[in-house]
Amino acid sequence: MASNPVFYLLLFLLVSLLFQSSIIVNGRLLLPLQPKPSRKDHVDYARWLAAENSWGMLSTISIEMDGAPFANVVSYSDGAPGQGQGIPYFYLTTLDPTARDIEKDHRSSFAVSEFPVGTCGTLDPEEPPCARLTLSGKLKMIPNDTSEADIAKNALFLKHPAMRGWPKDHNFQFYKLDIENIFLIDWYGGAKPITVEQYLQYPNMEKLASTSIM
Amino acid sequence: MASNPVFYLLLFLLVSLLFQSSIIVNGRLLLPLQPKPSRKDHVDYARWLAAENSWGMLSTISIEMDGAPFANVVSYSDGAPGQGQGIPYFYLTTLDPTARDIEKDHRSSFAVSEFPVGTCGTLDPEEPPCARLTLSGKLKMIPNDTSEADIAKNALFLKHPAMRGWPKDHNFQFYKLDIENIFLIDWYGGAKPITVEQYLQYPNMEKLASTSIM
Repeated sequence: MASNPVFYLLLFLLVSLLFQSSIIVNGRLLLPLQPKPSRKDHVDYARWLAAENSWGMLSTISIEMDGAPFANVVSYSDGAPGQGQGIPYFYLTTLDPTARDIEKDHRSSFAVSEFPVGTCGTLDPEEPPCARLTLSGKLKMIPNDTSEADIAKNALFLKHPAMRGWPKDHNFQFYKLDIENIFLIDWYGGAKPITVEQYLQYPNMEKLASTSIM
Repeated sequence: MASNPVFYLLLFLLVSLLFQSSIIVNGRLLLPLQPKPSRKDHVDYARWLAAENSWGMLSTISIEMDGAPFANVVSYSDGAPGQGQGIPYFYLTTLDPTARDIEKDHRSSFAVSEFPVGTCGTLDPEEPPCARLTLSGKLKMIPNDTSEADIAKNALFLKHPAMRGWPKDHNFQFYKLDIENIFLIDWYGGAKPITVEQYLQYPNMEKLASTSIM
């Protein structure tokens, strides 16, 4: 059999696909860690989006652009894989405008999409069933040597191991978004009214949340 | 040979991988249409990021949140595949806060990442060699029945065929970002100073751009 050209063709195709797959998926999750939640539980959906993504866009009020918005790509984590608490933590340096902007105005907005999670199928990223989540509030630096800095460090370094080696002289600091407003599109019919309490206390308030916002 | 179990095992693995790949890559490009540009030509890199991505985050000054920034996931296109002109066009409805916000304040910021293009390898999305581009300026509605509306429609509908079928009664309109400021991180050492002229006139000013911003 080993001399049969069909065998070698199959082997070649298999090896090519394996290599191709490893290129495609470098640095991103192949599949979500947790299955996609039911459309009926919007709080679950929002928390799932926050847990499954590892990067998004963080917007601030720009100092350099006289108060215009400034959107920036950032990595984040809401907790160790499978243990997310919904609060996005960041590792930023004031060498970047985002961290400088919030020294003047803390107001920030952070958006993630279901699209890079890989579960939108053939949907367009702007179509409502391909969900999107915006968490808005105040971005705050977490003081070093506090228990919250440990939580942020653990959350971030587990999902972003490269951060451990980022240059010490760039003075990266841990930040968190104090969430004040949640904007979720996970189906047709406009944004789903999720309260910050429902979002943060999930899954403890799972039943309440799923009944009150349907 | 067909009765050999190794043959069936290879065939099974091949078919599994083919199916897995088609799930993973649904709705996104497998590989960039154009090869990744040289790190030495920052204008080329910025235009490549704008051309290869199909969605990003658009931030506005929120009316509902009293002037705080609001980041939203949107689809966009800078032109037909391979013919991008660098200007992001959008298809938005005032049922969404983003399009309402700019009726009061046009200032907007739009960010894309190299990460979803699939060429960052094992880099973290926040590491400088995994490039990110922010285009800031004024987001403006394009009047219907103009040549620019045709350009926007052609650019968007080719990259986002689903848009053709979006509900007529939602009054989607074409928008463009009039770029006033460009923020590009494509390597260590901070943002690369690209002017709007260099960006928009590329590749006509390719030589000038690559020599003046090194």
